[in-house]
Formats: sequence, structure tokens, C-alpha cells
Amino acid sequence: MGIIVQKFGGTSVGNVERIRNTVNRIIEEKEKGHDVVVVVSAMGKTTDQLVGLANELSAYPAKREMDMLLSTGEQVTISLVAMALIARGYDAVSYTGWQAGIITEPVHGNARITEIRTEKIKSRLAAGQIVIVAGFQGITPAGEIATLGRGGSDTTAVALAAALHADRCLIYTDVTGVFTSDPRYIPNARKLKAVSYDEMLELASLGAGVLHARAVEFAKNAAVPLIVCSSLEREEGTLIEEEVSVEKNLIVRGVAFEDGITRVTIFGLENGFRNLPDIFTTLAEHHIDVDIIIQNQTADHKTYLSFSIKDKDLKETADLLEAGKEALSIDHFETETGLAKVSIIGSGMVSNPGVAAKMFQVLADHGIAIKMISTSEIKVSTVVDAKEMVRAARCLHEAFELDAVEQNI
Amino acid sequence: MGIIVQKFGGTSVGNVERIRNTVNRIIEEKEKGHDVVVVVSAMGKTTDQLVGLANELSAYPAKREMDMLLSTGEQVTISLVAMALIARGYDAVSYTGWQAGIITEPVHGNARITEIRTEKIKSRLAAGQIVIVAGFQGITPAGEIATLGRGGSDTTAVALAAALHADRCLIYTDVTGVFTSDPRYIPNARKLKAVSYDEMLELASLGAGVLHARAVEFAKNAAVPLIVCSSLEREEGTLIEEEVSVEKNLIVRGVAFEDGITRVTIFGLENGFRNLPDIFTTLAEHHIDVDIIIQNQTADHKTYLSFSIKDKDLKETADLLEAGKEALSIDHFETETGLAKVSIIGSGMVSNPGVAAKMFQVLADHGIAIKMISTSEIKVSTVVDAKEMVRAARCLHEAFELDAVEQNI
Repeated sequence: MGIIVQKFGGTSVGNVERIRNTVNRIIEEKEKGHDVVVVVSAMGKTTDQLVGLANELSAYPAKREMDMLLSTGEQVTISLVAMALIARGYDAVSYTGWQAGIITEPVHGNARITEIRTEKIKSRLAAGQIVIVAGFQGITPAGEIATLGRGGSDTTAVALAAALHADRCLIYTDVTGVFTSDPRYIPNARKLKAVSYDEMLELASLGAGVLHARAVEFAKNAAVPLIVCSSLEREEGTLIEEEVSVEKNLIVRGVAFEDGITRVTIFGLENGFRNLPDIFTTLAEHHIDVDIIIQNQTADHKTYLSFSIKDKDLKETADLLEAGKEALSIDHFETETGLAKVSIIGSGMVSNPGVAAKMFQVLADHGIAIKMISTSEIKVSTVVDAKEMVRAARCLHEAFELDAVEQNI
Repeated sequence: MGIIVQKFGGTSVGNVERIRNTVNRIIEEKEKGHDVVVVVSAMGKTTDQLVGLANELSAYPAKREMDMLLSTGEQVTISLVAMALIARGYDAVSYTGWQAGIITEPVHGNARITEIRTEKIKSRLAAGQIVIVAGFQGITPAGEIATLGRGGSDTTAVALAAALHADRCLIYTDVTGVFTSDPRYIPNARKLKAVSYDEMLELASLGAGVLHARAVEFAKNAAVPLIVCSSLEREEGTLIEEEVSVEKNLIVRGVAFEDGITRVTIFGLENGFRNLPDIFTTLAEHHIDVDIIIQNQTADHKTYLSFSIKDKDLKETADLLEAGKEALSIDHFETETGLAKVSIIGSGMVSNPGVAAKMFQVLADHGIAIKMISTSEIKVSTVVDAKEMVRAARCLHEAFELDAVEQNI
């Protein structure tokens, strides 16, 4: 039997009762004969409470000190899980990020893992111990505690699975797997048996929320099979791997959507985009996330540029554009809020050219106006009125037969 | 200006408001031109809460994992204090025990500091930064987190002051200094300007509670001047150093007392104590703290042995003696609970032979029966009925003129 990595999120270790449940899940895998490495997040609302304390003392808490503060959350969980396992008669040992040899770049708040020194974990596994590792954290070459940013515990788990050549990495969460769409809005949404890394990447970056995109990227590069499953319910989860052997005849595998989108349109870029890089560099420097970008020319050969941002970034974006009007050679700009993005995802699309057309037709048939379009090899995103978001997602889910019974090949 | 070390206990950092107050105290010292190193404990009840969680998951939590768990408490505080200082415009950096180079013996729960590698702290001080160090914790040579046991943050502060050759170590607490006796019971108790290390050691081990004995020992060996003062009130504290220059004419410097004492008397040790080591080894192995030990012979040349323990250890002690009756050659034993220890402390005693006699006379004059006596060079302890404890302390406090106005020389 090989090594497996199990990752439990904040909900799965949110209180003593849930920790006991998590411990049962760990023991099950150990009893199957695996070498088990466990990655855990901070308990439930711990991180929010710590952030609250910090904000009371500082409007802009120093990032190094925030990492020092937040990394305690996972350290509490690893020790509790380890002592609970020991109390059940299993040999277990907990490691913080720095003890586990998780080396990051010298950045605070959003560091990337650069290396994992696995000797310590391997020697403990060889001695028959269950190793519990704190997610979300590592150590810089200078010995500073660094955190990995949103979804960091997923990344820790996948990176460990890759470094240890684990057979698979199990991600336990509060849903039972990856769905064709959000079941809260699309009653017919169905759990997928399997998706490819690329599909999961699109689903993750389109707000599916189950797994962080960076973790999926890591898993893809290292070819670590991921399984997303529930920590509470005993259902089979969703397998994420390179070659999806089931559901091959499904061209579209999921419908994702999110609201809170604003469209910004800039007019009068006469000089043919010479200032285009400047605009996006300025926005990036202010950490404004630009999603869809569209450029075109009007009949009188004037260039216009549209891009989508989050509603929350609207004020700052408008201020920046206003301030840079002259430098950026902008004539004027318009904004439209209250929009939503609805996307279809599926790696089968690349060889099925009619998919995008079908999507537009379906939306047109339902009288839903498309405001922006963006395509990639495995997804098509449309921006529509936020009021139409759920209706758009539902009719696409139905039109692409995502609620059909799964067909194994 | 040299280096000073400031130590703030759990009450002084118990909430956001108190942390702000603590930050003011740190800034005051920095503004005086000192290089400042700060040691902090966990916030208020944090440690108790963490212990509670652990106990829910394990009746006897693994000690290594308890250290992993409890050490997060101080890590939270250091980051909050550092970010609050930074928010006030001061350059500050927080260090966990392992980052600060605090090396301990390979023991969990009650480790001793073996070495402090000060390079990192020194380089930060040289760069003008205020260094905030997590108290109560260190790292073993194998890279394991170890805690220092009760009063551990005091020990961290004193050990750092010694290693850094600090000018002094300020211990901020919830009282304004070291008193001649406990002001809650002895209304005339007076704050001492100064006491010697040895006097403080006796006061600490006799339950004065302000400072942990291990920290005082450390300070004595390294000749670090300690100042005990209030974190809230602006009063001068008590200086603890080798040569006490003030109050020289006070022979007795304090009256300490504690109840919850049980006396155990063993009869029939006919073989002249051959089994004495066995008895105390057995008790020590069961972590039963034996305080006063008295042996004597009765008129018929039988040996009897009395010793005092805490009430809470009575059942276990009785069980052990009962079980070992034969092996230990014990005829029978008796116990008396509901006792208290009342002690007088003062380094002037050694050259004033009448002090003990005066103490016994004072107690006799007040009709208080003495059940046990133990003396050292700088203290005399008596065991009396717990009901008489406070009255005994009061009349001794008065007889030795501890409430008299302080006389500086």
C-alpha cells in the first residue's frame, strides 16, 4: 500500500465532535494499510476571529505579523487531531509548516511553495506514525512564517501528495463532490464522477468554490489524482485526474455562474491600443482583478475597449481611469453594474465547434441578452444581467443535458 | 543606553484595550532610548480554553501535542503586540520561541532553557527594532516545540535579560510590587522597595505568587536586576537584586502564608530510617510535593517521621503508604488536614539568632499552637491550624514592625 494524503477543511474540524468524526476518517484509511498524511485547516471561524482582533489593533496589520497570527489556527488543529488519534491508540505526530519542511518564497500573505523537504515526514511514516501537517503555512528561506493565501490548505495537501508521490489526495469538504452546477440554485444539478484537471481549473476559477485553482494547478503539474468528497456523508466523491474515463460523451460538464460583475467600457483609444498595457498595468498594481477583456473598432475606426471587474473594485477603477485620462489618452468611459457571468465548461468542447453557438441560441431563445462573451478551449463565458443569472444557468443546464443520468463507458 | 527586557503577563494582554496599554508602556521605554525586548504570555484565559479543548479529546493529552497546542497562545499575543506597535509607527518584529533561539532540554511540559542564541535578536535591536518574543516556549535540539511550565514567561524574560546582558528586566503584573504580606488579608501590608534574590526565592516558593521561583533563581545566577511592577498603575515597583541597599534595618522582610496543608506522621520506623529514602522516592515518583520534613525519636527510642503535603495529595499519599506498609516497614501512620503554613522571611535573620524565638513567643502569646517548624538561613516556617492562619500572619506582621514606614539609609 502506498501513501495517501487526506485534507480536512475548517468545517470538518470546526468543533470537538467534528474533530472526532475526522479522526474516524483518518483511522479508516490507516486501517486499510495506507501510510497516512493528514493536512488540516484552522477550526471553523478561528481565522475570522484572529483577523478581527488584528483589525482592532491596526487598520492595515503588517503582513508578516498577520502570517505569525493566522498560522496559529492550523497549529491548534494539528495538535488536537494528533492527541485525539493518540487517545484512540494510534501513533500520531503533528507538524507545523516549518517542521514539515514546507519552504515558500519570501512573501507574506500569499506565498507560493517552492520546495518540500520530506525527510522528516518520510521517517515518521516509516515508523508507522500518522503525520498531521498544518495547512496554509510554510517557512521562507530566512526562517519567517509565511501563509499561502486563500485555499492554502488545499495547496499544502496537493503539494505534499506530489512531493511524497502519494497514490492520491483526498479533499474532504462540506459538499459531496463537484457538481454540474450549484445545487442551491439548480435543483437538477448532479454530482460528477470525474472531471479533468483543466475542467476543474475552470470550475474553480469560475467560483465553484470546492477547490482552490492553485491547488488544482499543482495537482495537474504533478499528476496527483484528487478526490473531492464529503467529510460527513458516506458518498463517493468526484475524481479529478488527467484522463477522464467516464462521462466521455458529455461535451459540457458544468455550468458555473457568479454575480457582482461590472463592465467598464473605454472610448477614444485613437492610437490603436498603444496605451492598453498601461491601463492594465495600472489596474494590476492596485490589485484590481480584470476578468473578460474585449476590444473592437466602431464604424468610424475608433477603438473601444470593454472589460469586466468585480463590483467592489468599481470605485477604485473609476478613480484610476479618471486620474489617468490624459496619460492614458482616454476620451471617456462608461460603467454598467448589476451584471453576472454565466459559463459552460467541458474539455469536449475543443472538438465540438457548435457548442458556443448552441449556448448563444439557448440564451436567445429564452430572451436573455448577452453583454460580453469570452471563450477558451474548454469554456465559454457570457456576461448577462444579474437578474437573469439563475434562469440562464438553469436553461443551459437543461439544454446541455447535465441533469441526465450518468453514462459510464 | 543599554538593553531592557519587559515582560507582560496574561492579564496585561488580556484584551485589545490592555494590549494598547501594554504598547504604551513599551513605547515609553523605547522613547527613553533603550533597546527594548518584550516577552509576553498568552492572552488572559487562552491557555485554559486550549487545555479545555484538549481534555475533551483526550483524558491524558500527549505532552508533545500539548506543547504544540499551548505554544500558539503566546504566538497570537506577540503578533498582536507587534502589529499594534507598527500601527503606532514603531518598527517591531515578533519571534516565537524557536525563532528567538531559545533552546531547551528535550522535555515536554516543563522544559528548562539550556541556551539562548541571541544573534537574531541582537541584529534586530541593532537595526532599531523592538523585538517581541513569545514567553513560555522554546525548541529542543531535535526541533520540537517545548514549553517551560508554570511561570515560564518570567523565566523566558529573565533568561533573555541574562543572555543579552540587559540592564534590567521589568516584570509587569497585576500587583504593584512585592509586599511584606498578602494585602488581601493583612491590611497593613506594605510594598517593599527592594528584596534580595534569596528573599524573593523564599517568598515565591511560599506562595507570594508574583514571580516564579525558577525565574528568580535564573536572575540570581545571572545577577540580572529584576523589577516587579504594575502594568496598569503608575507606581514604583519592587527591585530584586543581590545587595539590598535600602531597608537594611529590617530583619524580617515578609510574612507569607498558605492553607490547604496536611501533616502525615509515620510511626514505627524501627530500623533507624533505612527506609526513609524509599518513602520519599515513592512519593516523588507520584509527583507528590513534600514540603516540611521532621524526624524525631520518642522516649522509648522508636522513630517517628512527620511531613507536610498539600491536602489534594492526601488520598494518593495514604494509598501509597497503605500499599507499601510492609515494604517500607511502617507500623502505622496518622494524618491531620486543615492546617496552614505561616512563614517569616528576611536575609537579616542569619545574623540575628533571636528571630525564630521571637516568632514562637509571639504565636504563643496569641495562643496559637505550632504543629511543625522548619527553618532555613533566611526564613522560619511554622505549621498551625488553618483557622489561625490569618491571625498568626497579622500578629507576626505587627510584631516584626513590617507596617512601619520605610526607612531609607
